[in-house]
Amino acid sequence: MEKPADNHHPIEETIRRRWSPRAFAETPVHNADLCSLFEAARWAASSMNEQPWVYIAATREDVETFEMLAGVLVPANYSWAKNASALALSIAKKTFSRDGSENPVARHDVGAASAQLTLQAMTLGLFVHQMGGFDKEKARDIFQIPDDYEPVTVLAIGYPGISETLPENLREREHAPRVRKSLPEFVFRGEWAKSASFLED
Amino acid sequence: MEKPADNHHPIEETIRRRWSPRAFAETPVHNADLCSLFEAARWAASSMNEQPWVYIAATREDVETFEMLAGVLVPANYSWAKNASALALSIAKKTFSRDGSENPVARHDVGAASAQLTLQAMTLGLFVHQMGGFDKEKARDIFQIPDDYEPVTVLAIGYPGISETLPENLREREHAPRVRKSLPEFVFRGEWAKSASFLED
Repeated sequence: MEKPADNHHPIEETIRRRWSPRAFAETPVHNADLCSLFEAARWAASSMNEQPWVYIAATREDVETFEMLAGVLVPANYSWAKNASALALSIAKKTFSRDGSENPVARHDVGAASAQLTLQAMTLGLFVHQMGGFDKEKARDIFQIPDDYEPVTVLAIGYPGISETLPENLREREHAPRVRKSLPEFVFRGEWAKSASFLED
Repeated sequence: MEKPADNHHPIEETIRRRWSPRAFAETPVHNADLCSLFEAARWAASSMNEQPWVYIAATREDVETFEMLAGVLVPANYSWAKNASALALSIAKKTFSRDGSENPVARHDVGAASAQLTLQAMTLGLFVHQMGGFDKEKARDIFQIPDDYEPVTVLAIGYPGISETLPENLREREHAPRVRKSLPEFVFRGEWAKSASFLED
């Protein structure tokens, strides 16, 4: 299913077509394609080139890790994400390696890496749906995540499926239009909530 | 100057070519192109579709806001970023609008939005260099940022320039190769620090 952005200004096609489906096809994802996804994450920008991102990742074929990842999801997410072709947990290293000080943009930079991963996926026909709804303490426990790292999101990765395979309560959401604030609502000039001057032309 | 990634797996060309220059050309950026950058940010994914991103943004032509933005940078960043064609401050809304609860992925989602902005920029020949080095309290003060929002990064946006225009101590860094951890160093399976099984093929 396609749900392209209702964009008001021209944007790149992968950005326009990206959305977060819940219905995934049973088609397996190739290992080489998954490598390209994480390669795209690898080259994201990060503060001090810290690269604070770690992923725990598995295809459905890696049954043990896949089940561990699916097992940390809240039930509402488990119901559909268990059908993805691959799952990954994104993790942020909270401190700078060079001096142990707090990295205030650790989660920000993980977000950038996962965004690059997601757009790379789009070029391969794959979709990514990220979830905040999972048990962070359980994830820390079963994956032995060290104290200076923190779990951030779970990513479901796969080819788009058909919404009829979803539980009934999710089918409607799958077809709902994508909505966003307009640019003047979040791009400001020097005065808070006053839209940027370049938007006016 | 081009510094393409030394990638081990195929990745999309804008991701491959993205890097964070300090030398910017004097060429102004078109308002329409800036709108496309923020339109790309607009369509990023976010937890609960909160869209927790706000930007305070100005081209060099919007002298007042541009100078305010440049003025929050630490001197080492000000020395080169003042020559960018546009500056923007990214800001995260720390709470969910629907119930006021903490949004643990606010910064993560701002990172995703700015990554989409950055890749959109690449398609237009523009480069983005994000900085964590700026005075957050000064930014909060002069831009009257409400308590439930927090400044995250400053983005310098412009066309690439020539490194000879940089202060001498920055010229060498401009030419330094881009380095990253290898995939097995940050993509794990169920056991911490043990690389994911799909990397082995």
